[in-house]
Amino acid sequence: MTTQMAREIREQPAAVALTISSLLASAGSIRRLVAERRHVLLIGRGTSDNAAVYGQYVLSTRGRLATLASPSIATAYHSDLDLGDVVAVGLSQSGTTSEIVETLEWAARCGARTVAVTNEPESDLAAVADLALVTRAGREVAVPATKTYTSQLAAMAVLGLVLAEDTEMLDQLERVPDQMARALDSAPLMEQLAGQLVGADRFVVAARGYALSVARELALKLQEACYVTAVGLSWADLLHGPIAMVGEGTPTALIASTGDAAVFPGTAEVARRCARAGADVIAFGGDAELAAECRVSVAGPDADAMLAPMSLVVPGQLLVEALARAKGIDPDAPRGLRKITQTA
Amino acid sequence: MTTQMAREIREQPAAVALTISSLLASAGSIRRLVAERRHVLLIGRGTSDNAAVYGQYVLSTRGRLATLASPSIATAYHSDLDLGDVVAVGLSQSGTTSEIVETLEWAARCGARTVAVTNEPESDLAAVADLALVTRAGREVAVPATKTYTSQLAAMAVLGLVLAEDTEMLDQLERVPDQMARALDSAPLMEQLAGQLVGADRFVVAARGYALSVARELALKLQEACYVTAVGLSWADLLHGPIAMVGEGTPTALIASTGDAAVFPGTAEVARRCARAGADVIAFGGDAELAAECRVSVAGPDADAMLAPMSLVVPGQLLVEALARAKGIDPDAPRGLRKITQTA
Repeated sequence: MTTQMAREIREQPAAVALTISSLLASAGSIRRLVAERRHVLLIGRGTSDNAAVYGQYVLSTRGRLATLASPSIATAYHSDLDLGDVVAVGLSQSGTTSEIVETLEWAARCGARTVAVTNEPESDLAAVADLALVTRAGREVAVPATKTYTSQLAAMAVLGLVLAEDTEMLDQLERVPDQMARALDSAPLMEQLAGQLVGADRFVVAARGYALSVARELALKLQEACYVTAVGLSWADLLHGPIAMVGEGTPTALIASTGDAAVFPGTAEVARRCARAGADVIAFGGDAELAAECRVSVAGPDADAMLAPMSLVVPGQLLVEALARAKGIDPDAPRGLRKITQTA
Repeated sequence: MTTQMAREIREQPAAVALTISSLLASAGSIRRLVAERRHVLLIGRGTSDNAAVYGQYVLSTRGRLATLASPSIATAYHSDLDLGDVVAVGLSQSGTTSEIVETLEWAARCGARTVAVTNEPESDLAAVADLALVTRAGREVAVPATKTYTSQLAAMAVLGLVLAEDTEMLDQLERVPDQMARALDSAPLMEQLAGQLVGADRFVVAARGYALSVARELALKLQEACYVTAVGLSWADLLHGPIAMVGEGTPTALIASTGDAAVFPGTAEVARRCARAGADVIAFGGDAELAAECRVSVAGPDADAMLAPMSLVVPGQLLVEALARAKGIDPDAPRGLRKITQTA
């Protein structure tokens, strides 16, 4: 039986294509609202926070410092800040997590212009924002977010590229859905890998730069759908201590955009160190040098490093869905979770 | 035999006292350099990044938006940003991690004023910054940072409180070393707990607000000194999915400032959910309601929520040191690590 999660993973190329074309129609509104603001503050939890991490790189490499907010600064400590040169972007798939809605309202009171990124046009989050960027993933039923996540990545890409008026990359953005569709071809390999990893209860997932969002998201998916204690982090941070936990047989995934190989030649060296420590190292994307250090490697898309994450995450999602089934877990409904999480 | 790490944990009250008195003498320079800048950008890796997380809350609750930078935006992607209203703060205990030095230099080129927080007055980081806030932890020999971390927290507290001219809290700050000394009394309980946890290879550590830095730091210490796959995160993020990985027997630590009990009444509810899932729940700090949900609880300091983290981390450090020994690991020299990590 096909799970809902598997179906939704396969719906991603269409969801992302529709999101891109729909949001490009808002390019004028984005520019008018955001253009003269210097900084971007991103606000999310869980998967949406991982999408914010992608937004941080897309925006910061295109002329605007973008960083992540801690919602409790608003909701618990009621800080009084000057956000007069800031655009605050709240991300919530359901648009109903009250912590995110309240933090966006707080940002507006502090002087920020506000943008909502949500899959629900009628949600509270969309209602309180100056501008709603509505993703077009359609209804998502499985508890682990997949197509809503990649649609959020697409929204971040549109936001960053429209603000920078980066027409060359906007052209390349249109090719992303095809690249994602090709990434679905890794399904048989991921099914096989899941069978090998069925006993894994720990996982280390690392990346840098644009791909960091995918490392964090793969770790989160392994936690919620496979009950695996997974650590997702920058491999620069991994080298500053945590690498000591990588030992004999530790499943370790390294994620790299092929186009980033020149920027992060260190990725292969990290793989080598992990392999020397006895880890079971798996590469998602990257170049031949990285693949040579890993037991298994999955090719990444032929895309610019900035656009690769939307495709790079797909084999990881397929692995998670297959691993959950291999472990006897229903990936559509992990224990103790509901589709919409309320935090305040 | 007493390990170097154990000795350095015990040196913390003196290190923090010296750091506070020494940095307060720079109050005038801090105000002159930073006063009219609106935002703060914090830059660190590993333990220093965890100290930056504390700084984020201290500064943001006292009038200045403070967020974390991704060094690769500078070192790998060479972004061109307008940081004309920003103070960039680089944290590195050794002051020699080239990634942090380069990112601070980049921030200055983008228009930021720059501050170094380092334990080494003659380091590169101190040399490139407009102002060096030198912590006074003395020489640290054990690879896992302890007294340099709490001294960095003290530097963050001084920075935030001096800028806000918060004289009441500056008075309270002087009491922190005594509170840290009392926290050392938990050593026998932590030794006993380490014996019970000797077989643990996974750990979940969660907190919110000011205490989040401690949760992340305890997870990092468990990773590097005990080879435990530890996830350190906000419990708001834990509820958005990762809580599914908390199951029968999962060691789960919740860290809370007693003074934050009114701000985060949800901490006890998180403990209850984890306990219901079969987890082995341990509380560091918090109130009686939290303690009632946990198998073991360690009292926190009688301190304001903002100042509690410097003491709250101490029992966690003692646990890590004892657990490493119980596992047959030399905590002073974990596998594959050196005292100074170079990342670029």
